[in-house]
Amino acid sequence: MRVLGVDPGLTRCGLGVVDGSNGRKVRPIAVDVVRTPAEMDLGSRLLRISDAAELWIDQYKPEVVAIERVFAQHNVSTAMGTAQAGGVVALAAARRGIPVCFHTPSEVKAAVTGSGNADKAQVTAMVTRILNLKTAPKPADAADALALAICHCWRAPMIERMARAEAMAAEQMRKYQAKLAETKKAGSR
Amino acid sequence: MRVLGVDPGLTRCGLGVVDGSNGRKVRPIAVDVVRTPAEMDLGSRLLRISDAAELWIDQYKPEVVAIERVFAQHNVSTAMGTAQAGGVVALAAARRGIPVCFHTPSEVKAAVTGSGNADKAQVTAMVTRILNLKTAPKPADAADALALAICHCWRAPMIERMARAEAMAAEQMRKYQAKLAETKKAGSR
Repeated sequence: MRVLGVDPGLTRCGLGVVDGSNGRKVRPIAVDVVRTPAEMDLGSRLLRISDAAELWIDQYKPEVVAIERVFAQHNVSTAMGTAQAGGVVALAAARRGIPVCFHTPSEVKAAVTGSGNADKAQVTAMVTRILNLKTAPKPADAADALALAICHCWRAPMIERMARAEAMAAEQMRKYQAKLAETKKAGSR
Repeated sequence: MRVLGVDPGLTRCGLGVVDGSNGRKVRPIAVDVVRTPAEMDLGSRLLRISDAAELWIDQYKPEVVAIERVFAQHNVSTAMGTAQAGGVVALAAARRGIPVCFHTPSEVKAAVTGSGNADKAQVTAMVTRILNLKTAPKPADAADALALAICHCWRAPMIERMARAEAMAAEQMRKYQAKLAETKKAGSR
């Protein structure tokens, strides 16, 4: 499974492509960071990020795009820019019919380091080790994008199992309620 | 000046087009609300909003797109969705080379009602009166989109004057510093 991981941001947007296979084997394909200047107007910044995301999706043809789920950060206006950047990347994927998955920062940290509270250095170190890279990916946004892609490769089987279980539970609930309605109807006759 | 006002949101995204002329005369052109179901995945919701924004921009050919600036709201996840929706609308405008302006909710309220703390009912009532509408636009998102467009029509001359004044000040500062550097250079000879 090929995954494009995205650490969204207006100033720096990390993009990382990873190939996952059965088990925990993951292989690095590409990584980069798109930068847009703060003095550029928001529309043009989003356009640049969108163009980069579309180029990467068309070039690397990921099966899934995994984006970091944004929460309120210390800096509210940064969080808004991050959400907008993530939004245009999700849009680029949706336009091509590619599913988008969101993972929280702690899910990503926990997947690659074993701890949801790991710091940036630990994430970078583990990404470097997991992908067998000769040098650590820099800046942190590049490492985070790869971490997101790895996290998705490893969580995907579990997410799929959960979805199947939930669908099955919903189907059983539907059957049960249909039966209940029938029984009530029979009783009221 | 034709303005497309956008009250961004995932569940309801208000779109309103207004023609402004010299002075405070504004004329309503179109208003609608795009809705996307909460159970739809985020990528598809953003795609639907983006498609609607592109359709409106291509159909009504606004000179400017005015979007509400999102701040952290009580509900953080709603604020993120709102930012993402606003982001894809800004992207649609940027793709077509149309400038995007952001106005805060209090700027919009102050422009149409005279008070930055006006409630939704007051905004709707004033929008209805200003645009000479027979019936009040509904839901509130539709009225807000029109209010944003009106706000932009009225604030645009002021924003332009400010930009000109700032550019002039920057130019004078540049000249002054060049002169200062020259004087220093002459002194050190």
